[in-house]
Amino acid sequence: MQEDYLLSSVASPRDIKGMSIDELEALCVQIRGKIIETVSKNGGHLASNLGVVELTVALHKVFACPQDQIVWDVGHQCYTHKILTGRLGRLDTIRQEDGLSGFPRRDESVYDSFGCGHSSTSISAALGLLNAKRLKNEPGKVIAVIGDGALSGGLAYEGINNAGACNRNFIVVLNDNKMSISRNVGSMARYLSGIRTRGIYLKTKSAVDKILSRVPLLGKVMRKAILKSTSTLKNLVYNGTVFENLGFMYYGPIDGHNLRELIKVLQVAKGKDRPVLVHVNTVKGKGYPIAEKNPKAFHGLSGFNIKTGAKGATSGDFSAVFSRELFKIAKDDGRICAITAAMKLGTGLTYFARRFKNRFFDVGIAEGHAVTFAGGLAAGGMIPVFAVYSTFLQRGYDQIIHDAAIQKLKIVLAIDRAGIVGADGETHQGLFDVSFLNAIPNVTVYSPSFFEEVGPMLRKAIYEVDGVGAVRYPRGAQLYKPEDFACNCDPFDVYGDLAGCETAIVTYGRLFSWACLARENLQLKRIKTCIIKLNRIKPIDNAAVMEATKFKNVFFFEEGMQSGGVGERFSHELTQAGFDGKFYLTAVDGEFVAQATVESSLHKLNLDAEGMEKIIAQRVDAFARQEKAGCSAV
Amino acid sequence: MQEDYLLSSVASPRDIKGMSIDELEALCVQIRGKIIETVSKNGGHLASNLGVVELTVALHKVFACPQDQIVWDVGHQCYTHKILTGRLGRLDTIRQEDGLSGFPRRDESVYDSFGCGHSSTSISAALGLLNAKRLKNEPGKVIAVIGDGALSGGLAYEGINNAGACNRNFIVVLNDNKMSISRNVGSMARYLSGIRTRGIYLKTKSAVDKILSRVPLLGKVMRKAILKSTSTLKNLVYNGTVFENLGFMYYGPIDGHNLRELIKVLQVAKGKDRPVLVHVNTVKGKGYPIAEKNPKAFHGLSGFNIKTGAKGATSGDFSAVFSRELFKIAKDDGRICAITAAMKLGTGLTYFARRFKNRFFDVGIAEGHAVTFAGGLAAGGMIPVFAVYSTFLQRGYDQIIHDAAIQKLKIVLAIDRAGIVGADGETHQGLFDVSFLNAIPNVTVYSPSFFEEVGPMLRKAIYEVDGVGAVRYPRGAQLYKPEDFACNCDPFDVYGDLAGCETAIVTYGRLFSWACLARENLQLKRIKTCIIKLNRIKPIDNAAVMEATKFKNVFFFEEGMQSGGVGERFSHELTQAGFDGKFYLTAVDGEFVAQATVESSLHKLNLDAEGMEKIIAQRVDAFARQEKAGCSAV
Repeated sequence: MQEDYLLSSVASPRDIKGMSIDELEALCVQIRGKIIETVSKNGGHLASNLGVVELTVALHKVFACPQDQIVWDVGHQCYTHKILTGRLGRLDTIRQEDGLSGFPRRDESVYDSFGCGHSSTSISAALGLLNAKRLKNEPGKVIAVIGDGALSGGLAYEGINNAGACNRNFIVVLNDNKMSISRNVGSMARYLSGIRTRGIYLKTKSAVDKILSRVPLLGKVMRKAILKSTSTLKNLVYNGTVFENLGFMYYGPIDGHNLRELIKVLQVAKGKDRPVLVHVNTVKGKGYPIAEKNPKAFHGLSGFNIKTGAKGATSGDFSAVFSRELFKIAKDDGRICAITAAMKLGTGLTYFARRFKNRFFDVGIAEGHAVTFAGGLAAGGMIPVFAVYSTFLQRGYDQIIHDAAIQKLKIVLAIDRAGIVGADGETHQGLFDVSFLNAIPNVTVYSPSFFEEVGPMLRKAIYEVDGVGAVRYPRGAQLYKPEDFACNCDPFDVYGDLAGCETAIVTYGRLFSWACLARENLQLKRIKTCIIKLNRIKPIDNAAVMEATKFKNVFFFEEGMQSGGVGERFSHELTQAGFDGKFYLTAVDGEFVAQATVESSLHKLNLDAEGMEKIIAQRVDAFARQEKAGCSAV
Repeated sequence: MQEDYLLSSVASPRDIKGMSIDELEALCVQIRGKIIETVSKNGGHLASNLGVVELTVALHKVFACPQDQIVWDVGHQCYTHKILTGRLGRLDTIRQEDGLSGFPRRDESVYDSFGCGHSSTSISAALGLLNAKRLKNEPGKVIAVIGDGALSGGLAYEGINNAGACNRNFIVVLNDNKMSISRNVGSMARYLSGIRTRGIYLKTKSAVDKILSRVPLLGKVMRKAILKSTSTLKNLVYNGTVFENLGFMYYGPIDGHNLRELIKVLQVAKGKDRPVLVHVNTVKGKGYPIAEKNPKAFHGLSGFNIKTGAKGATSGDFSAVFSRELFKIAKDDGRICAITAAMKLGTGLTYFARRFKNRFFDVGIAEGHAVTFAGGLAAGGMIPVFAVYSTFLQRGYDQIIHDAAIQKLKIVLAIDRAGIVGADGETHQGLFDVSFLNAIPNVTVYSPSFFEEVGPMLRKAIYEVDGVGAVRYPRGAQLYKPEDFACNCDPFDVYGDLAGCETAIVTYGRLFSWACLARENLQLKRIKTCIIKLNRIKPIDNAAVMEATKFKNVFFFEEGMQSGGVGERFSHELTQAGFDGKFYLTAVDGEFVAQATVESSLHKLNLDAEGMEKIIAQRVDAFARQEKAGCSAV
């Protein structure tokens, strides 16, 4: 690592105002080193951060934050911004429990003007901030920084459509690295690549004149004539980019690693009375050759070896198992299609995409479209499987209702990263899907606990379900499975000996593993429990409820929101079934879950083996005491 | 009304294939007459249907449905399509219980290739249908018909971004009537109006040549030189429309009421191997002068007088009350902003928009943007109130979590059309908002039953709530209010005399009125009840739960989905509070609610006074018998 004499002198963005271009360039080198070092230890988004070092430095050189406000889209590229805004000292805590967030957060710094994590929100949020400034007569500029990938999201377009009609300075920096997380798709990406190659383009009369002057045989008089000609031709020549058509001035494309150019164009943009789009070409992974070569692989990481780029061996995970199982099914059934919203690698569809190119669709960061498009495929007789992270499926909520469930169309949702996800924190937790799917008619949801259940449940979702079928599974590997437990993929399993057992644990998904451990530990305390493992969580099998009524104490553990979750429903159905024992529900309620390791979060929520054991032991003791008291009163 | 000799001869689209242009024009007149007559009786979407009569006839003349598939966006303009596809005889049942739907429905006709109701889905769905045809090697074209209003929705852009990259015939007809429901907004609308005025524009080499030939002093040689010139200039000249930049061939603008032109251009479009966008100018309300003059007012109707256009007097409704109350608050507090997603009139914001122009934002049909934009305004210190129909708020689900609740930003949701909405049917019911908001932390929800509660609850949502505050109210007028009931807007009210009362009804919103009537009727049967009226439904006040524990029988009635609703939560909290009586929950569960009058739907769901009375009387009798049996057993 280099000496970071410049880096350590920056306590706030003010400290870079006086630096020369040479110093700023040296600073960029030091920032890169710091980022690589930090991400290699803590994990995080390497390639995207390395891509915007110069851009971020240029932004803070030209603008005066926090009076000027930068809104980062997605936000995983904010490390340089955090370094420059007084958070260098805490950078090594990034993405760790109680540490810096890997994303901008309003409660972390006054320089983080809007929080994020999901894609395509920046223009809308920035336009809100701008209008607030206008209404309050407050000074300052607002700048949204959005990637070309995020630009495939409809929300970004809605923002552009609104921003383009405003008549004040409003700056959108398009950080064009040709990537979503995978290579960017769609006609907008193709269009951007067209303008990338045509060279710098400043839309002025003299620029058009300059272009016309390159036409052979066209003299000065002619050029003048064209410039003064019928509005039709002038319009055609002036017509320019999509962004200009949508109300923005367009500057670009600019080399995103050339500080001098960046600073110049941002200063020009700052002076306009109109919306301006600055198109900046950046290289994902810039300055770390291994990441430059394979930015996909260095998008989101859990740590790696700096010298070799080697990452910890990924043991089998649920995504990989889903991938294999879907592949097997698709091999035999030509109706199966796979859809991803820019998450081919993360959702395990790479191999499917290679082998069944025809039936694979990467739609860009566009979950709403993914669901509606799946609805169209289904209406046409195909069986689409949309593989998507739980948190991002929130973007397709209305479409699940309107374009699939109401029409009883068979689409399949493969919901990855269901439950607690770890270091990405609040914005990425997969805690809402069960709750929001529960309320929608014509939806069936399966929840495997183990790898071997993924295939059979996926087949059920595909072949046995009317309407929407969903299979949800957590990030990472499967957990503990007792030797005497056999998966059967019925709507529910009962594990344990019912005879003389008064206490049941009801749960689903990976929590079943912790329940088994808790059960073993409770056994040592002479508390006997059985476990009802729900495999189909929507609809709940009535027989599972009837099974639970046989117990005196029922403990439900759920890795998801309590409201609308399976537990609340189970509680109500138990009541209706005449259950008169004690029901105790542990789920996530009324709070977002902060970044931490999955283990730590589950522990704090009493959703690990220890927590389950503690809750059950306490309550069962209390019940026993109450009962004793009750008896003695009689 | 005219003789409709042509109309009555059309049993399927085949029957218009042989008609001459003159006959088709006469047919259009007859169709218009039929639509005006029907909507005047049944209500429905008049102006939008009158606008697309010629377009629909031309589509069915040129394309061979159902092998070719037309996907209507929003779908409220489908009446001509229904008439031409064998549903003329049932047209007078449209929007009525068990009658034709006011929207396309796959279960209604093989000619309805995809269902809808919400905006901006057509391109995505059509692209799915097209890919299904491709994968199954089935013949046929797919055509999406989308309005310029729907084009402001991000989902439409996601669709264009994906469709523009495909290399097959795919036709998008842009039905440009300059309107969403109100006048269309945003830079895309401004852009369309620009190309509308520049005259027909067929993008071919010869067309460019033709344009160049209009330039004075530019001879043939020069023109050739330009056409063969550096790609830079050619690109500029060819650059063309946004749609071309995004991968579509562009034809238009075409007069949407000129059958001959429409048929010609559709035939050309049909022959291309690429995505084609046909830009058609139509006049909303065409052929019915009163509606042409004021299309907003004739967008969605409940019936009117054909000669005068007079509609039934709208007595006060919740939207109007919200409108007045928000106005009062905004007069005293300059931080209040109002946002609508193209529903200024429907949500009652017309007057606010006129008086507080600066603080009013119509963002187009873009609910996701509306929420994120509100988040930005809130982060900037304003207090944004987003007035939106419950069903459309589903489009902003992720944004509520990600751009407001996680960041604890104070945005206010004024949720209109909450609950059953009537003739619009499944797609428009406001039955999900309570359930999906319940699961989100940092959200507080109020539910007024009466007009006089709207103001105080809105003030609470604005001034007393941390994070997201919501007030939800139904479509239309307030219902029965007993003389001895006084609104207090505490978290809950108890109505009735507790002394000796064993049965409680718990409910919220307008159902309180039916509960009061049920209570009065039950009194006659000597069944005494009290009513716990929840005013703040999230979070539920624990005191309300404790109050309920005092009763033997608790009946919860909810006009919303059971899963994740207030009732299920109340049930669980009752259990936790040690309640050992009977709890009975009536809500909407596992089904979508079909079109019918609100009264009829509530009746079928046992959510009207009669239903409540029936359920309570039956159960209380049963409980009494059980108890008696229990006693005698002892």
